[in-house]
Amino acid sequence: MRSVTDAVDLLRTASPAAVDVFTRILTRGPLSRTDVARLTGLSQAAITKAVAPMIAAGLVADHHDSAANGNGLPGRPASPVRVVPESLVTLGIKVNPGDIIGVATDVTAGILVTAHLAVVDTGFAAMVDAIADVVQRLRELLGDRAERLAGICVAVSGDVDTVGGVVRESALLGWADEPLGAALHERLGTEVLIENDVRALTIAEHWFGVGVGTSSFAIVTIGSGIGCGLHVNGEVVEGAFGVAGEIGHLPLTSEQYVCTCGRRGCVEAVASSSAIVRAVASAQSTPVATIDDAVALAHAGEPAAVEAFDRAGTVIGTAIATVANLTGPEIVVITGEAVADYDLYDQRLRAAFGAHAFGAAGNCRIVIRPHTFEDWARGAAAAALRALVLQRYAGLGAAPKDTEHTLRGSSAPA
Amino acid sequence: MRSVTDAVDLLRTASPAAVDVFTRILTRGPLSRTDVARLTGLSQAAITKAVAPMIAAGLVADHHDSAANGNGLPGRPASPVRVVPESLVTLGIKVNPGDIIGVATDVTAGILVTAHLAVVDTGFAAMVDAIADVVQRLRELLGDRAERLAGICVAVSGDVDTVGGVVRESALLGWADEPLGAALHERLGTEVLIENDVRALTIAEHWFGVGVGTSSFAIVTIGSGIGCGLHVNGEVVEGAFGVAGEIGHLPLTSEQYVCTCGRRGCVEAVASSSAIVRAVASAQSTPVATIDDAVALAHAGEPAAVEAFDRAGTVIGTAIATVANLTGPEIVVITGEAVADYDLYDQRLRAAFGAHAFGAAGNCRIVIRPHTFEDWARGAAAAALRALVLQRYAGLGAAPKDTEHTLRGSSAPA
Ligand SMILES: [Zn+2]
Ligand SMILES: [Zn+2]
Repeated sequence: MRSVTDAVDLLRTASPAAVDVFTRILTRGPLSRTDVARLTGLSQAAITKAVAPMIAAGLVADHHDSAANGNGLPGRPASPVRVVPESLVTLGIKVNPGDIIGVATDVTAGILVTAHLAVVDTGFAAMVDAIADVVQRLRELLGDRAERLAGICVAVSGDVDTVGGVVRESALLGWADEPLGAALHERLGTEVLIENDVRALTIAEHWFGVGVGTSSFAIVTIGSGIGCGLHVNGEVVEGAFGVAGEIGHLPLTSEQYVCTCGRRGCVEAVASSSAIVRAVASAQSTPVATIDDAVALAHAGEPAAVEAFDRAGTVIGTAIATVANLTGPEIVVITGEAVADYDLYDQRLRAAFGAHAFGAAGNCRIVIRPHTFEDWARGAAAAALRALVLQRYAGLGAAPKDTEHTLRGSSAPA
Repeated sequence: MRSVTDAVDLLRTASPAAVDVFTRILTRGPLSRTDVARLTGLSQAAITKAVAPMIAAGLVADHHDSAANGNGLPGRPASPVRVVPESLVTLGIKVNPGDIIGVATDVTAGILVTAHLAVVDTGFAAMVDAIADVVQRLRELLGDRAERLAGICVAVSGDVDTVGGVVRESALLGWADEPLGAALHERLGTEVLIENDVRALTIAEHWFGVGVGTSSFAIVTIGSGIGCGLHVNGEVVEGAFGVAGEIGHLPLTSEQYVCTCGRRGCVEAVASSSAIVRAVASAQSTPVATIDDAVALAHAGEPAAVEAFDRAGTVIGTAIATVANLTGPEIVVITGEAVADYDLYDQRLRAAFGAHAFGAAGNCRIVIRPHTFEDWARGAAAAALRALVLQRYAGLGAAPKDTEHTLRGSSAPA
């Protein structure tokens, strides 16, 4: 296999048409060159010309072992091509208040290795050190495969400026305007992409999950926060100012509930795990410290606990109806750590969705997806790959990106 | 000038790359071929090859009278090209309960002629006749220019199935599941596109208004209904089931208010013109019949009237914050007939937006745009052009579209 630099350089300097070709093969492959031509609207000659350097760089291969290849020879229009999973490795790191979870994935978002690190000090400097430790641990676990490392992304909940690498606000971590990208760049000697965690999860679903073959979808995460990633018109919705999908802070409940963000009536003010714990605790004589305590009381039929989950289910269902009425997704995937106790939300959530979804917007399919904490980290790894492919991020092992050249100097394969 | 059939046939059979080239020239021109190459990512040779048949068909011309052309010759990379405004004409019709407004526009959405028709009977059959009368009147007013007619679009408020040409629900017109497209096809002998009115307005802004050079925007219409058109990731948001931007039916006010749609707590239940009139009337001893009566009372400081507009401003501002938190537009344009009395909404609207916009989402610029009823019809005319260019609609003067051929048989200019 050629060096990772060849593959990364090819992606860095690819024309928009070549990026489109690679993305189709990555997310829909194996595909015949004829099918790639049909999907991209490019000529078969253009596809053959675009694919050749991808094969030379080891990113793409003829799909020899496919039954569909019986009629074709390598390089012929009917001969299917696929990505080479092991050609590139990306790291994804999810930062939580109590721990850091890292994964290394191949090009198809398949998890290769995983690393966990418990952290006590959530201060910024200590967290930067801890993230660097997790990166180092993942490199060690990868062994020789670390040579294929092409990108790193760190996912954080809250308002993240991906372009500047700044965590503008993360209530969960207690951070404000922390230059995480720059700090990790200095610490690791390489560019690190910083992304909102829900957006990263949405990117992974777009390329490797429910988003493949879907016109539009939303991922709704429930748990310590209530988040939403939106995919509309072929791309993740990022927001002109880096904020989008903030369903946790839609004013859909009574003004009497004050959110951790300081606003009134936010969804999270009644539906986040801490809001539920608070509501249940205030009605109990025995201590209620964790969401597990609240779940146990609700399962035991304790009225205040049942009511707290009912209220959370109602406001989450109302929030999903709001997303549906505004953006009309084909599918809504509900995931996040609270999905483990989804039975406590289900009835009120569906009732509120039904009451407020407008007309045909109510036809969207609601899917409940089991969730692991590795999912967040895997989302970050997919975000690193996507940023590399879409030329928003230079990645590892590559010279600094000359944006002007990339945007202006390349032409489509003709 | 060549016949309109040549131009329409060229658009109908254009490759995706050629569609992209034409769209850039249409919305950003005059542009040099070099700039078109840069914007589309295609080679200059591909641009020259794509533009030549557009010039032959009379859709595009070398921009001879531009100062920028001093250094170039026609057909040379630096020689700018532009669309020929008079090459195609489209008709846009807006259907209201009390009247029908029609315009004919050129390719750049410039209004050529206008026709109004007052209607008393809003029943479906009578409205089909009235729309056909407006089309006939526009044809007469166009004179010779009617030969360039390439498409007709009718815009209706409510839940519209554009693909099927069905008005699924229009509370304002009192229609449910009316096959408007098929009825007009039979009546006029030609395919007619049916579109939601706010989406049509958004399409016009995308190609010819605030959307040019904007990453994302929202149009919020206030008046007899409260609507929203969203433009995200390069396209209007249409919704997987044809419903999107329904801010009028977001549950953002108290459940005590029942909406005309039958749901509780909808924005329109307190912010539509009829809701405001109802609220003011219930508190007056003298009759309050129209929104103008309510406006006059509010301007005179009558407390119930001031309160009704305050409540409307608050819920509209909250709805705009909801749009911002979810989709993060760069600009929000407020328009619609109630903009004439925007002073009555302004203070509470901005306060509610400020209270609920999350983080950097609050940076979006809110622009108030004066509004005429012709704007709706012009939006419909732009929607007809867009559907023609994007090959979702065969248009007039053309053979029935062979979708299979169009999608599969053409290749990019190489
Ligand atoms: Zn909040
Ligand atoms: Zn309603």
